[in-house]
Amino acid sequence: MRNFTYDASTRILFGKNRVFEVAPEIKKYGSKVLLAYGGGSIKNNSLYDTVCKLLNKAEIPFVELSGIQPNPRIESVREGVKLCRENDIDFILGIGGGSVIDCIKAIAAAVPYDGDAWDFFIRKAKIVNPLPVGSILTIAATGSEMNGNCVISNEETTEKRAAGDDSLRPKFSILDPSYTFTVNKWQSAAGAVDIMSHIFEQYFTLDPGTYIQDAMAEGILKTCIKYGPIAVNEPNNYEARANLMWASSLALNGLTGTGKMFGDWATHGIEHEVSAVYDLTHGAGLAILFPVWMEYVLDEKTAPKLAQYARNVWQVNDTDDIQAARQGIAATRKFFNELDMPATLANVKITGEKIDAMAEGACLFGPIGMFKKLGKDDVRNILVAALD
Amino acid sequence: MRNFTYDASTRILFGKNRVFEVAPEIKKYGSKVLLAYGGGSIKNNSLYDTVCKLLNKAEIPFVELSGIQPNPRIESVREGVKLCRENDIDFILGIGGGSVIDCIKAIAAAVPYDGDAWDFFIRKAKIVNPLPVGSILTIAATGSEMNGNCVISNEETTEKRAAGDDSLRPKFSILDPSYTFTVNKWQSAAGAVDIMSHIFEQYFTLDPGTYIQDAMAEGILKTCIKYGPIAVNEPNNYEARANLMWASSLALNGLTGTGKMFGDWATHGIEHEVSAVYDLTHGAGLAILFPVWMEYVLDEKTAPKLAQYARNVWQVNDTDDIQAARQGIAATRKFFNELDMPATLANVKITGEKIDAMAEGACLFGPIGMFKKLGKDDVRNILVAALD
Repeated sequence: MRNFTYDASTRILFGKNRVFEVAPEIKKYGSKVLLAYGGGSIKNNSLYDTVCKLLNKAEIPFVELSGIQPNPRIESVREGVKLCRENDIDFILGIGGGSVIDCIKAIAAAVPYDGDAWDFFIRKAKIVNPLPVGSILTIAATGSEMNGNCVISNEETTEKRAAGDDSLRPKFSILDPSYTFTVNKWQSAAGAVDIMSHIFEQYFTLDPGTYIQDAMAEGILKTCIKYGPIAVNEPNNYEARANLMWASSLALNGLTGTGKMFGDWATHGIEHEVSAVYDLTHGAGLAILFPVWMEYVLDEKTAPKLAQYARNVWQVNDTDDIQAARQGIAATRKFFNELDMPATLANVKITGEKIDAMAEGACLFGPIGMFKKLGKDDVRNILVAALD
Repeated sequence: MRNFTYDASTRILFGKNRVFEVAPEIKKYGSKVLLAYGGGSIKNNSLYDTVCKLLNKAEIPFVELSGIQPNPRIESVREGVKLCRENDIDFILGIGGGSVIDCIKAIAAAVPYDGDAWDFFIRKAKIVNPLPVGSILTIAATGSEMNGNCVISNEETTEKRAAGDDSLRPKFSILDPSYTFTVNKWQSAAGAVDIMSHIFEQYFTLDPGTYIQDAMAEGILKTCIKYGPIAVNEPNNYEARANLMWASSLALNGLTGTGKMFGDWATHGIEHEVSAVYDLTHGAGLAILFPVWMEYVLDEKTAPKLAQYARNVWQVNDTDDIQAARQGIAATRKFFNELDMPATLANVKITGEKIDAMAEGACLFGPIGMFKKLGKDDVRNILVAALD
């Protein structure tokens, strides 16, 4: 087990009606709020009205940033920065899923920075003293509610890049599973895949001696496998929504990555290229790419870990590692198919023409992946194998 | 899953040589330190010298409180409070195991309080604005390094009682597994039992829908079962010591108790009575009592959870819940025996004469336990069954 620092300091307010605690939480950190959200969905249920009333009642002034899109754009970030500066904002509250929460983190980082917000994503600037942020989560997927990472898209350059710092962790996140009852089948399934993929990225490493991390990771994977289909088929099943929502946060708050070097993150890198070009739902892209990646990286060195996954998560009994690994990969693919996730890029109408550019983009800073290092050619091969 | 708040804010510095970061961590919170520890063991290795040198080099003045005993006494707490007040201490650093860390929390709570420190333990006073504390952990067992609880003994009244508040969570804890290489076989085994018992207390409940918590709890239990015997037999096995050390913190930082009402905690209540009277090692007392408690509470209502434990942790295949539960209990007892933990109170030379008083003490505030409520007679029956 490698040395690690664990500081998952986001305060989680989990359960029904926890939104009523939002004002006192904000007041610990700020006095004037940017209220950020996406499309109109929070206005269709009562969440938006509730939050506005609570802020007004607590005499917390706020300005609004609406229209943050899935795969949030750097333009939204710039707009938010402008609003914060013009209005002396000292706290940002996001209501939404990973896109909104990622966007408010990028805004929080950029407000005290002199240059352009995109600088953080091309490694030109470091994040220093960001504004504090908090979130009210409305979809279980990215885990952004309990970590310091954000992913932003730049349409101009067709790039989708990540940045992050522990200082960007939300001060609090309100997780009420009933807000996710209205998440549709497609997004619910993609969310479950996204949660699993975060575990995959940290689980599939060659770091030795991380038994406890792996055991917890396997527990979170089994949670998604049990409750993903239930959430898709019974949208108002509180137990399923609650288990998935807590899984979302635990899958990417640092817990299962402790004691390991970095995790792998190649598949995320590749998926970011695909969804930067085609604006695909992140979880759907991961459902296509992960089984292909698992097959591609399977060799004598990686087989023991892929076999461990197959045995502990999918109850595969085969004693041969390579065979067991193959059965685990097949089970993964079958599960994603049962969630009605796409199996190939062709399923989502993506053809091969931009594969070279995507492979180039994925390896912009050099080879990717730690479980198995992948260069441009490897990424190209994976994308070709994912085509149909 | 019930509503919960999760705020495990202790910063964990895990791994080899993390002690060298102690001074900057302290400086975030204070400028004059009470350095608290137990017997001489930290003076036999270089840890004590290292910490003193680091504090001196960073120009952090400190006074010392030494001689904190296992099952720490209220007298040590009072002595610490006096030292803090006389020397204007604003931060307490504990080096040791749960006893030292529990003791410094009680001191931290009592310094700003007008009355006597024991008041917190008989529910006469609430903990408000304690001094900040930090820890350097030297034994994997209680989890005190990552929570806000403390247990203190009062020899005068032969009581051992718990108190706690989130504000008592250490600001940071340094977890270097190599410090536990010198922990002897008995204490290593008792530590593993203690970790498992914390999981048991939170796992054995009737709360529905807590699949993810249970899956993680089962992972931590399997970690102890895998590495407990290795740590006992190969004291310098870093992998075993590291997995147990991280298990210790995760077992009682709130994680596996999220979404549940309280956990059970009856067995801890009973063990506290036994070790208050006989000064028994906490983990050894738990090794005697837990299998007896499991047998005593086994009925139609509790069988499904005890069977789940047997199946998921001990690979029991029996489809009958009662039968599966019995096999899981037998496996638990066998495992504790293999760790050379005592199986009966007679093994540790405890006879039946004080059983009535202990049963009375355990139920001082009413019946105990949530999985199955236990009154004085039940506790008496359990203690009698544990005799030999």
